[in-house]
Amino acid sequence: MNMSGPSADTLSRLADAAGPAGALRPDSEDLARYLVEWRGLFHGETPLVLRPASVDAVAAIVRIAHETGTGLVPQGGNTGLVGGQIPDMSGSQVIVSLERMNSVRTVDPLNNTMIVDAGCTLQTTQEAAASNNRLFPLSLASEGSCQVGGVISTNAGGTAVLRYGSMRDLVLGLEAVLPNGEIWDGLSGLRKDNTGYDLTRLLAGAEGTLGIITGAVVKLFPKPRATETAFAALRDPQAAVELLARLQDASGGLVSTFEIISDSGFELTLRHFEGAKDPLSHPSDWYVLAEVTAGTDGWLRTMLETALGNAIDDGLVLDATLAESETQRAALWALRENMSEAQKLEGASIKHDVSVPVSSVPAFLQQATDAVTAAMPGVRPVPFGHIGDGNIHFNLSQPIAMDPQAFLDQWQAMNDIVHGIVASLGGSISAEHGIGTLKRDEIKTYKSDVELGVMRAIKAALDPKGIMNPGKLL
Amino acid sequence: MNMSGPSADTLSRLADAAGPAGALRPDSEDLARYLVEWRGLFHGETPLVLRPASVDAVAAIVRIAHETGTGLVPQGGNTGLVGGQIPDMSGSQVIVSLERMNSVRTVDPLNNTMIVDAGCTLQTTQEAAASNNRLFPLSLASEGSCQVGGVISTNAGGTAVLRYGSMRDLVLGLEAVLPNGEIWDGLSGLRKDNTGYDLTRLLAGAEGTLGIITGAVVKLFPKPRATETAFAALRDPQAAVELLARLQDASGGLVSTFEIISDSGFELTLRHFEGAKDPLSHPSDWYVLAEVTAGTDGWLRTMLETALGNAIDDGLVLDATLAESETQRAALWALRENMSEAQKLEGASIKHDVSVPVSSVPAFLQQATDAVTAAMPGVRPVPFGHIGDGNIHFNLSQPIAMDPQAFLDQWQAMNDIVHGIVASLGGSISAEHGIGTLKRDEIKTYKSDVELGVMRAIKAALDPKGIMNPGKLL
Repeated sequence: MNMSGPSADTLSRLADAAGPAGALRPDSEDLARYLVEWRGLFHGETPLVLRPASVDAVAAIVRIAHETGTGLVPQGGNTGLVGGQIPDMSGSQVIVSLERMNSVRTVDPLNNTMIVDAGCTLQTTQEAAASNNRLFPLSLASEGSCQVGGVISTNAGGTAVLRYGSMRDLVLGLEAVLPNGEIWDGLSGLRKDNTGYDLTRLLAGAEGTLGIITGAVVKLFPKPRATETAFAALRDPQAAVELLARLQDASGGLVSTFEIISDSGFELTLRHFEGAKDPLSHPSDWYVLAEVTAGTDGWLRTMLETALGNAIDDGLVLDATLAESETQRAALWALRENMSEAQKLEGASIKHDVSVPVSSVPAFLQQATDAVTAAMPGVRPVPFGHIGDGNIHFNLSQPIAMDPQAFLDQWQAMNDIVHGIVASLGGSISAEHGIGTLKRDEIKTYKSDVELGVMRAIKAALDPKGIMNPGKLL
Repeated sequence: MNMSGPSADTLSRLADAAGPAGALRPDSEDLARYLVEWRGLFHGETPLVLRPASVDAVAAIVRIAHETGTGLVPQGGNTGLVGGQIPDMSGSQVIVSLERMNSVRTVDPLNNTMIVDAGCTLQTTQEAAASNNRLFPLSLASEGSCQVGGVISTNAGGTAVLRYGSMRDLVLGLEAVLPNGEIWDGLSGLRKDNTGYDLTRLLAGAEGTLGIITGAVVKLFPKPRATETAFAALRDPQAAVELLARLQDASGGLVSTFEIISDSGFELTLRHFEGAKDPLSHPSDWYVLAEVTAGTDGWLRTMLETALGNAIDDGLVLDATLAESETQRAALWALRENMSEAQKLEGASIKHDVSVPVSSVPAFLQQATDAVTAAMPGVRPVPFGHIGDGNIHFNLSQPIAMDPQAFLDQWQAMNDIVHGIVASLGGSISAEHGIGTLKRDEIKTYKSDVELGVMRAIKAALDPKGIMNPGKLL
C-alpha cells in the first residue's frame, strides 16, 4: 500500500471509474458522515468517497487501486461497532460505499432464495422476503440502515441466531470484486455444491479484507404462523441452560429466542422506564425471555405451558408468564430491549461482547462477576444477552459514586479480566461485532499463532499489495 | 512434490513417526484394502500406509513429508466415490489412514456439541449422540464405515440435508495438521465467534488438499419424537416443487426428507424386488417420498393430511398415502432406497450427481431427458433423488438390447450433455460426491478461471510444496 497517499492522477482516475455522481471530494459537505462511526468512537480521513452504481464500476475502481497500491475501505450502512468501516487518520485510504447498489435483483420463492445487491438494507431484504410470503430471519437493532454487504462481511448475528444461524449461515453465494480487480460471480443458489473450497464463507466475516462484496444469494425460510413468548424467573443460570435444553427437546428445536437477564439489569429497566413492570410475582436473581415459533398453531402454547410447568415442579423455574396478546408480548420484549438504554441512564458502562459454550455460561457468569467485583469494589455487573448461543453481553455499570471517566479509564483492565476468563473457558472475545480496529491488537493475545499465520497467508495470497481494508482484522 | 518417490530413509522416518504398529509396508497383506476404492473404479500404489494414533503422530508425519516433499493421501473409511482417498499409480504417495484415531472425545449435551476423532465412523458418532438423547442428523448409506474426517473433507450430504444441512454446516470447529506440520487447534464449540476467517469451513470440503483433519466439534440437535412419512403420486415435477413449498409452509420448515422418484425407476423397483408393491391406486409419471419430523406429537399427522388433501384438491397430487406403522414406513423408504440396486439389475448405468436450484428441477428434468434420448434412442433415464435440495441423481439405464460396454463407452458423451444443461441452469456437476480425481479435469470447464484462480492461490499459500493429497480437486 502506498502510505504517502494516492496521487492526484490516481484520485482522478478512481473518481472517473466510479461513474457519474459516483465520487465525493473532501470539499463536499456530504463527506463527513462517511468518516465517523455513529457513536463517535471511530474517526478517519479520506481523500475520496466513491459510490459506484454497478459491479463493473467497483471492479474498475479496484483495478486502479491494485495498480497504484491505493488502500480501499468498503463501507455499508456505517453501523459497525468495531471501526471496520472507517478509514485511518492518514488521509490515504479511499472509501468505497455500496449504498447506490441497493436493488433486490431477483426473488425465487420456490428455491427459497433471493439475490440482493450489497447495498440493500437489511430491512429492505426482510421486506422483500415477507412480500413473497417468506422469512429472512436475521434481525438487528440497526436493520433500517445496515446493509447486506456489511452484514455479510461482519457475519452479523442478532436475536434469531439460535434458530437460523448467523449471516454466514444465511448466504448461499456471493458476487465480489477480488483485490486484483477481478469479478467473482459466485451467485449460486444451490443447496448442494461440492466443487471446491467454500469461498463464500471465506469472504463472509472477512471484514472486507479479501475483496468487496457486491451481491449475495440469501436463504429464505417459511414464515412462522404461530409465536409464543414466555418470561420466567429462574433458580440460577444453570437452570437457564437446562430450561433451554428442555424447551428445545419439547419443541423439536423451535426455540427462536432465549435471552437471559440479570436481576441487576431488570431492576435498572423497571426503575428507568415508565410503564415497565415486573410481570411475575416471584423476585429472582435471573430471568429469561423465551420465544418459540412454528408453522402450525394450536399445539405450541400447550407445549410451552407443559414444559414450564414441569420446570417449576423440578425447581428450575420459580415463576413464569406467557404473553396473552401482542401488547403483552411487546411489553415482555421491552424488558430485554431497554436494557442497554437503562444502563446508559445509570452512568458510564464498560462492555463485553463475548461467547462461551452454552454449558459454560453459568461458570463464566460466576467467575467474571467475582473477578470484576474483586478488582473494583462497587462495580455493578449487568450481564444479559443471547444465552442460547452462549453470547453474553457482560456489561459493567460504574460504581454509583465513581467519576464516569475514571471508571472508563479502567476499560482495558476490565476487558483483560473478563477476556481472560472467556479464553480459559474456550470462548471468544468477539462473539458478534468482529475485530475491526478495536480488537486488532488484542486478538493476537487470544488467537493461536498457527491460526493467525493461516489467516495472514490467505490474506497475502489474495491481496499481496494489502489494498483491501488495510489495518483491519489482521 | 518429489515425483521420484520418497527415499528409503524418508520412508523409515515416516514409519517411525507413525508410532508402534503404525506403518504397513507393501509386503503386508493388509495393504491391499487401502489401495482400491470399494467399487473397484479407482486403484493406486503406495510405498507405505501410515496409521497414526494421535494428532502428535500425524504432525510428526506431516513435518517429515513437508521437509522431504513427500505426497500424502489422507484416507478415512475409503468410501468416497470420486477417488479422492486413493493414491495415484506412481507409488510415490504415502497413505495416512485416520482409522486408529476413533474415539468420541467428549459429549456436551447442554452445548449440543460433541468432539470426535476424525477416524470415528459416522455410525459411532450418531450412536454417541443418541445415547445422550441427541440427534446427529447426517445419514449416508456408508455410515457404518465412512469416517468423520472423510465426511467433513468431502462435505458429505445424504437424505437430511434439506432440514439440517451438509457436513460443512454441522461442524463448529476442527483440529487439523496443516501442510507445514503445524497443529491447528480449532476445536471451538462456539455458536458465535467473529474473530477472523472461517478456517473450519475452508478445510471442510477441501478433500484433504489443505491439511489432515484429526478431530472435529460437531453440532447436535434435539431428537425428534414424532415422524410422519408420506408417499404421493404427482401431476408432474413442477407439482413436486410446489408441494414441497406447501409442506414447508404448513410445517414451519420441518420437512426432513423430500425425494422424487420417476415412474421409470419406480417400475424397476417393483419389477426387481420381491414384496415391493405400489402403495397407491393411481399410476403417475412422478412420485415423492416425504417425511416430516417434530419434537411434539399429535399435530403432525393432521398437518400432513390437510396439506396433502389441499394439494389433491388443487390437482398437484393425484393420490397419497401415509405410513400407518413402522413396517409401512420401511416399505415406503425401500421404494426409494432400492432404486440404485434395481437399476443395477437392469444392466449398465451412467450416473450423474448434479444439482440445480430447486425451482429449476422441472426444467432440468425435461431438458436433460429430451437431450439424452435424442442423442441415444432407447436410453432409459431413471432420475431420482433429493429434490428438496435440488440434487438429482440423473441416472441412465442402457437401452434394452444394447451391449453394456458400448453403452458405458458413451459415459463422457452423456455427462457432457447433462452437465451442459446443468451449467446453463446455474447448477453443479458435483452436488454431493466431490471432485477427487474423477472430475478434476472436467471442473475446469464449468468453474470460472477467477474462482479456480482463488482456489489455487489458497492452495499454494498453505501448501507451497503441494504435498497434501496431490492430484486431487485442483
